[in-house]
Amino acid sequence: MKFTVLVDVRLRAGIADPAGATIERALPALGYDGVSGVGVGKTVRFTIEAVDLASARSQVDDLCSSFLTNPVIEDAVVTVTEDDGAG
Amino acid sequence: MKFTVLVDVRLRAGIADPAGATIERALPALGYDGVSGVGVGKTVRFTIEAVDLASARSQVDDLCSSFLTNPVIEDAVVTVTEDDGAG
Repeated sequence: MKFTVLVDVRLRAGIADPAGATIERALPALGYDGVSGVGVGKTVRFTIEAVDLASARSQVDDLCSSFLTNPVIEDAVVTVTEDDGAG
Repeated sequence: MKFTVLVDVRLRAGIADPAGATIERALPALGYDGVSGVGVGKTVRFTIEAVDLASARSQVDDLCSSFLTNPVIEDAVVTVTEDDGAG
């Protein structure tokens, strides 16, 4: 079976976010006021082949903590959904 | 009123995604088989002050097309939700 995976990676609270800070600093000069708390994250989307949802999820959790994110400074929210089409 | 904004930016279909391709190429050597179609995107989260939801959304749409994304190669999905707390 094939599963569609979305990994949403964000910096943990309290970790410096230079990209977000730069955006926030630039916006008033560009005419956008009232924007605050800017945070920049990344997403990784892919398809994984696994026997069932539990197995897919456990593989993806492994992948996230070992390779896709840095668990020291980042948090990941993982969404695994079964593909509609036949695998 | 304050609104919480999530901008989810992805490369358009057909645009080369070197980060995704690198992840996909690396995974089998690390013991993860069956992963395909890897795509890497970015997210921008922030809070915006606006008079109502429509005004917030129009400001954010402007922001996206002019500053946060490159509309030639990227698509953005914008989610605007009203903050629960009083602004």
